[in-house]
Amino acid sequence: MTMQTWPTGTGVAAHLTSDEVDRLHRWWTAANYLSLGQIYLLDNPLLREPLRPEHIKPRLLGHWGTTPGLTFVYAHLNRAIVERDLAMMLVIGPGHGGPAPVAAAWLEGTFSEVYPDVAQDYEGLRRLVAQFSFPGGMPSHAAPETPGSIHEGGELGYSLSHAFGAALDNPHLVVPCVVGDGEAETGPSAASWQSTAFLNPVTDGAVLPILHLNGYKIASPAVWARMPEEELLALLRGHGYEPYVVAGSDPTVMHHLFAATLDRCLDEIAGVQRRARESGRPDRPRWPMIVLRSPKGWTAPAELDGAQLEGSTRSHQVPISDPRSNPDHLRLLEEWMRAYDPASLFDDSGSPRAVVRRHSPSGPRRMSASPHANGGTLLRPLRLPDFRDYAVEVDPPGATWAAATRKLGELLRDVLRLNEPHRNFRLFSPDENNSNRLEAVLEATQRTWVGPVHGDGERLDPEGRLMEVLSEHTCQGWLEGYLLTGRHGMFSCYEAFAHIVDSMVNQHAKWLKTSGELAWRRPIASLNYLLTSHVWRQDHNGFTHQDPGFIDHVMNKKAELVRVYLPPDANTLLVVADHCLRSRNSINVVVAGKNSEPQYLGIDDALVHCTKGVGIWEWASNDVDREPDVVLACAGDVPTMETLAAVSMVRREVPELALRVVNVVDLMRLQHERENPQGLADVDFDAVFTRDRPVIFAYHGYPWLIHRLVYKRHNHDQFHVHGYREEGTTTTPFDMCVLNRIDRFHLAIDVLDRAGEPAARAARVREKWRNKLIEHHHYVRRHGEDMPEAREWEWSG
Amino acid sequence: MTMQTWPTGTGVAAHLTSDEVDRLHRWWTAANYLSLGQIYLLDNPLLREPLRPEHIKPRLLGHWGTTPGLTFVYAHLNRAIVERDLAMMLVIGPGHGGPAPVAAAWLEGTFSEVYPDVAQDYEGLRRLVAQFSFPGGMPSHAAPETPGSIHEGGELGYSLSHAFGAALDNPHLVVPCVVGDGEAETGPSAASWQSTAFLNPVTDGAVLPILHLNGYKIASPAVWARMPEEELLALLRGHGYEPYVVAGSDPTVMHHLFAATLDRCLDEIAGVQRRARESGRPDRPRWPMIVLRSPKGWTAPAELDGAQLEGSTRSHQVPISDPRSNPDHLRLLEEWMRAYDPASLFDDSGSPRAVVRRHSPSGPRRMSASPHANGGTLLRPLRLPDFRDYAVEVDPPGATWAAATRKLGELLRDVLRLNEPHRNFRLFSPDENNSNRLEAVLEATQRTWVGPVHGDGERLDPEGRLMEVLSEHTCQGWLEGYLLTGRHGMFSCYEAFAHIVDSMVNQHAKWLKTSGELAWRRPIASLNYLLTSHVWRQDHNGFTHQDPGFIDHVMNKKAELVRVYLPPDANTLLVVADHCLRSRNSINVVVAGKNSEPQYLGIDDALVHCTKGVGIWEWASNDVDREPDVVLACAGDVPTMETLAAVSMVRREVPELALRVVNVVDLMRLQHERENPQGLADVDFDAVFTRDRPVIFAYHGYPWLIHRLVYKRHNHDQFHVHGYREEGTTTTPFDMCVLNRIDRFHLAIDVLDRAGEPAARAARVREKWRNKLIEHHHYVRRHGEDMPEAREWEWSG
Repeated sequence: MTMQTWPTGTGVAAHLTSDEVDRLHRWWTAANYLSLGQIYLLDNPLLREPLRPEHIKPRLLGHWGTTPGLTFVYAHLNRAIVERDLAMMLVIGPGHGGPAPVAAAWLEGTFSEVYPDVAQDYEGLRRLVAQFSFPGGMPSHAAPETPGSIHEGGELGYSLSHAFGAALDNPHLVVPCVVGDGEAETGPSAASWQSTAFLNPVTDGAVLPILHLNGYKIASPAVWARMPEEELLALLRGHGYEPYVVAGSDPTVMHHLFAATLDRCLDEIAGVQRRARESGRPDRPRWPMIVLRSPKGWTAPAELDGAQLEGSTRSHQVPISDPRSNPDHLRLLEEWMRAYDPASLFDDSGSPRAVVRRHSPSGPRRMSASPHANGGTLLRPLRLPDFRDYAVEVDPPGATWAAATRKLGELLRDVLRLNEPHRNFRLFSPDENNSNRLEAVLEATQRTWVGPVHGDGERLDPEGRLMEVLSEHTCQGWLEGYLLTGRHGMFSCYEAFAHIVDSMVNQHAKWLKTSGELAWRRPIASLNYLLTSHVWRQDHNGFTHQDPGFIDHVMNKKAELVRVYLPPDANTLLVVADHCLRSRNSINVVVAGKNSEPQYLGIDDALVHCTKGVGIWEWASNDVDREPDVVLACAGDVPTMETLAAVSMVRREVPELALRVVNVVDLMRLQHERENPQGLADVDFDAVFTRDRPVIFAYHGYPWLIHRLVYKRHNHDQFHVHGYREEGTTTTPFDMCVLNRIDRFHLAIDVLDRAGEPAARAARVREKWRNKLIEHHHYVRRHGEDMPEAREWEWSG
Repeated sequence: MTMQTWPTGTGVAAHLTSDEVDRLHRWWTAANYLSLGQIYLLDNPLLREPLRPEHIKPRLLGHWGTTPGLTFVYAHLNRAIVERDLAMMLVIGPGHGGPAPVAAAWLEGTFSEVYPDVAQDYEGLRRLVAQFSFPGGMPSHAAPETPGSIHEGGELGYSLSHAFGAALDNPHLVVPCVVGDGEAETGPSAASWQSTAFLNPVTDGAVLPILHLNGYKIASPAVWARMPEEELLALLRGHGYEPYVVAGSDPTVMHHLFAATLDRCLDEIAGVQRRARESGRPDRPRWPMIVLRSPKGWTAPAELDGAQLEGSTRSHQVPISDPRSNPDHLRLLEEWMRAYDPASLFDDSGSPRAVVRRHSPSGPRRMSASPHANGGTLLRPLRLPDFRDYAVEVDPPGATWAAATRKLGELLRDVLRLNEPHRNFRLFSPDENNSNRLEAVLEATQRTWVGPVHGDGERLDPEGRLMEVLSEHTCQGWLEGYLLTGRHGMFSCYEAFAHIVDSMVNQHAKWLKTSGELAWRRPIASLNYLLTSHVWRQDHNGFTHQDPGFIDHVMNKKAELVRVYLPPDANTLLVVADHCLRSRNSINVVVAGKNSEPQYLGIDDALVHCTKGVGIWEWASNDVDREPDVVLACAGDVPTMETLAAVSMVRREVPELALRVVNVVDLMRLQHERENPQGLADVDFDAVFTRDRPVIFAYHGYPWLIHRLVYKRHNHDQFHVHGYREEGTTTTPFDMCVLNRIDRFHLAIDVLDRAGEPAARAARVREKWRNKLIEHHHYVRRHGEDMPEAREWEWSG
């Protein structure tokens, strides 16, 4: 534990009184002791008796390496909170240092408030250490179970965007964010530094990044820790920060140095905010940040069996792996634990001594008790306009054309206006808002931007509520941080590129699942995706932009958490959007077109249809009073249009065939009720799809998803699904349908094939439609556009 | 088109002769003219007659904004190639400027070599412009169809990691890489700048980043373009580069300035490499790079209808949208096109004039004809050792235990050794190589690292072939670049975090699909994933690290492109790995355990089993000469172990029950042969799974995937799949199985339930096993480890 570096001329040695240093150090030591205890101990948490093998957990699981750095930061933030009466919420990027926030929450009393069986006494202490990384207990990473956390400690990369999301519209909140040198290498983390261009010092809070360089990842050195220091500082300055370096290992020196640096940063933040708020001119400031260089596994024994331990990768997980079976190692562990002098930190009852307790802030000032970190407690429902006010007139079905997302844009514009007083709603997009035809929102707000503006036309403003950055990761991270701290939002994205955040939505779904099992975690607003510019209408962009698989991805999550909506037209989109903005603790995926398309349902019918989720469109069917010969099902705007066109064609050619048209808006309804509480009961499913009639299903995405959803249904063998078969290129909209055999001609031919039509007539009609497909093929390749009958559309059912 | 800025004191005005400027400018003008022609024209490609509406495409699709910047860079690189006789391959990040590389390839003659129907004559020119963004023609983005490209122009973020991947082990190659200011905002791009810490100036080539700032994305200003210049330069210096800025819009000035800057950069690169190669000390150098600031839509009309066009977002896609219907706009377009003076660039036959032709390099020096950009032409098969040499002795099944990935590590070690002379094989991992138990490879190589080393134990070396950076995006991008330029590799990753590159694997799959349809694109080595530290054995990390959905994700790709292997033990893993390293143009996903587990098949049996992909394990079955009562199928190492344990239990309790054990290694074999050429024929499938017996299927991942794969099979109604149901936490391995009901007890109970056993006995046995589950539950929560009978395992079939 020798000092590594010592910046000269800082004059920080006198920054704290010796009493302050002592208090900081004891709290840090107590948190370290508890962290080590969590990793190792089943019992004997205060070492009242000599450590014996049976006190050690049989399976040792945890990460020591980053933990003492986290407890160090926590101790110092506590000092500042008390001294300045700050509202702070901490985001811990190296969340696999899970023991640290758990130790802190227990020392602050929050843990016992949330989990009353783990009190601040000896039995509570025993339970605290025993349950960590133990079946049924606390996970090894920071998690929903961890009081004060909005950030999971599993997949790295999202701490800084979460921190910025939390700071938005919380002008009095300071969000320190520890970024580990492992996480710093990830792409999402690398992109999130540019968030400074979007943080308004007048109306938003502050983020204080603390880049924690302890030199190593799992097994390799960290790139950022080995960069020449001048490059590191240049990099951070390039991101708009003024970095202050705190480096060393001697605790006393480090306490003075870190405290002085933290005070300086908090002063600068206060100054930035004061100047911006007084002047009303929120120029992009240079925000302060801290670079903390401390040894990996700080305060661990210097060596183990002759090899370096503190300051090396050997301290990354469990530094001493076999104390249960190796008596020498058991002794070494005991010495290490006793070096923290637990008797000086905890009294005989197991409670933290006053000197330790005194160091914690109280009530909601405790970071472990921050109401922002349990955002549901702060959640204020959105004021929503009446979606009926935006309705498209539809009479008769198919006669009106409209662009669905344009209507949604008008609704969202007014959601922005109605909630402006509460500043609790934002839109996020990777620069696709206008491309997705949501321009109307720019009548109510502008694009968030803290920087130079070149003319009014750019629609940029520091107070803008439309956040556009060309990083899906950053959009998602901001939105998650915003939702988790009790606000509302929507992410509009090209459908194909939602896959960029597949793994982030995984982690958010896991967060929601676990949170839902914790009574003290209050429900938060749902994560709403609008996926548009979808697979069927990527006219400009072609194959790379054609991928409907995000639906499949979210479908793997817990059924209670996920909804997938495929509104076929504008009014159904309005109904669905209204529902999503009211819902809680879900991930809602809405797939809707942005192009002008036929409209089918008036707003009242749309409401009824969306409420059912799956419904027979009687106006398009001719199976009244009889069993249908064929059911034509559809989900998605383009498949619905093609299905209705196919129905028109079939009814013209074979009028006596009884056809039923079923539209699916809420995809999860297809699942069996045993698998999904929202799933239709078998009797209801059968009433729509029949028990034995062929179902020609035109589906927006990969066809096998429908088979997966219906495999337990009675007539699932009769489902014939048309969908996207990964055939794409830059071509016309109708040609895309033909390439994937989801066009009206292929559908109509399939109806004939399944209906058991008399061979001769069927052959004639089939031949006619096949010729149409050939005509289409030549027409489109000669003229570069669809033949008129494929562009136009008229319902003639 | 006024000059914007002009760095003083550079003395560049005299860098080129007027003849050089003229040649550069004509080539650039010709490429711009052809690019504009591609966006607009159906016919009249040389404006021999006045432009009429019918010469214009009915659907105008393309991106002008970035295109002239790309042609500008291309023109200048050509000058340097010729002057210095360089081997260059260009990576174009703003690939939606697709017209640019197509125009360049046609001017260089490569396009006509590859597509002989598009010759360098008038008819060829007509076809060239007409087919762009036209059904059946060239896509609007740089794509596999684009000669000279290894980089798709759809999803942004991967150009720089592709460029670095291409440069690895190509010491004489220079890879300029244009990074757009849109792409620069993405996370994967942001992470890839740190690649300099991994590029060896002795044995690798050079990457020359050209950051192209034209100010705007689709609709918003670009963050990097609006940063204060000093921050931008600090940022790039922080990434290890020395940036040189070229800014302006006056073509002559820009030609001098860019040429001087490019010469300087190429001199510096040559100097860096010479010094490193002479000294043999490859310290991390400061690499040069270029920042090019030029107007968006450069050379477009300054205004359209009174609004700014050149230099604004209005030039992002098709700058004049309605020349077919608006005569004024048609005239404006014609004026714009004629301003390039096509008659001075192309002769009467439509060929480029000599002054234009002369500017191009010849043969493989043409970037559009670089053999590296068609890597299959350079592909040398790997020398592979005999996988039998690494086999685990297995006699009888289940008696030996081994860690599968350790054995694979030994094989990979020797692959590294055998191919060291050709330097064409690398391993990539987000710092998980050792965690994934592939340590043996460090006997043959070290970790790639160009920077300071703290002691031998770190196993770092500039010539190392194990590339570890904590960015899955960068690993994937490097590997793709390496494969696309004709080399081999493997990506080892925690299973859950493969989702981080979901969208990248999408784009690679699309590339492979399209490449496979182009005769001139030669097959490349497959993209091989080893997914380990999988869902069932994330003992340390818990819920966030538990996600087997990557398999589902890749399954949505074209069946011909994807293979998913679930080897149940070490010998099958060896066989599968050998196969994957030999395969071409595929994406191979191998999921295998890293923990010590029972071994089932000797190496010869493993080869037979893997070749079939799906097989009955007769040694574990007792249905000889009779129909089985129940089929127990399994896929994956943990499900296989639990299945065999269940079989032991059932046979002990109900010996007269006829059980058949089926193991699935190659998941795609389950698909119907009509959907997948590798799928089993129905008759073969039925011979294994029967037509009507219940199948209890223990599957590694989400259970519905199996239903999706078998839904067309005869007895699919009889499939009862146990798999991962998104129940996870930090707990014991066996408890994970129980939580998801894939453990031996749940499987055995299901066998009884499906077998139609006499009620009384079944009830007794079922009761016994249910009690075992209760005992397990309490044991694990009391002791923190699995009860002995769940940890141990003995095959007693």
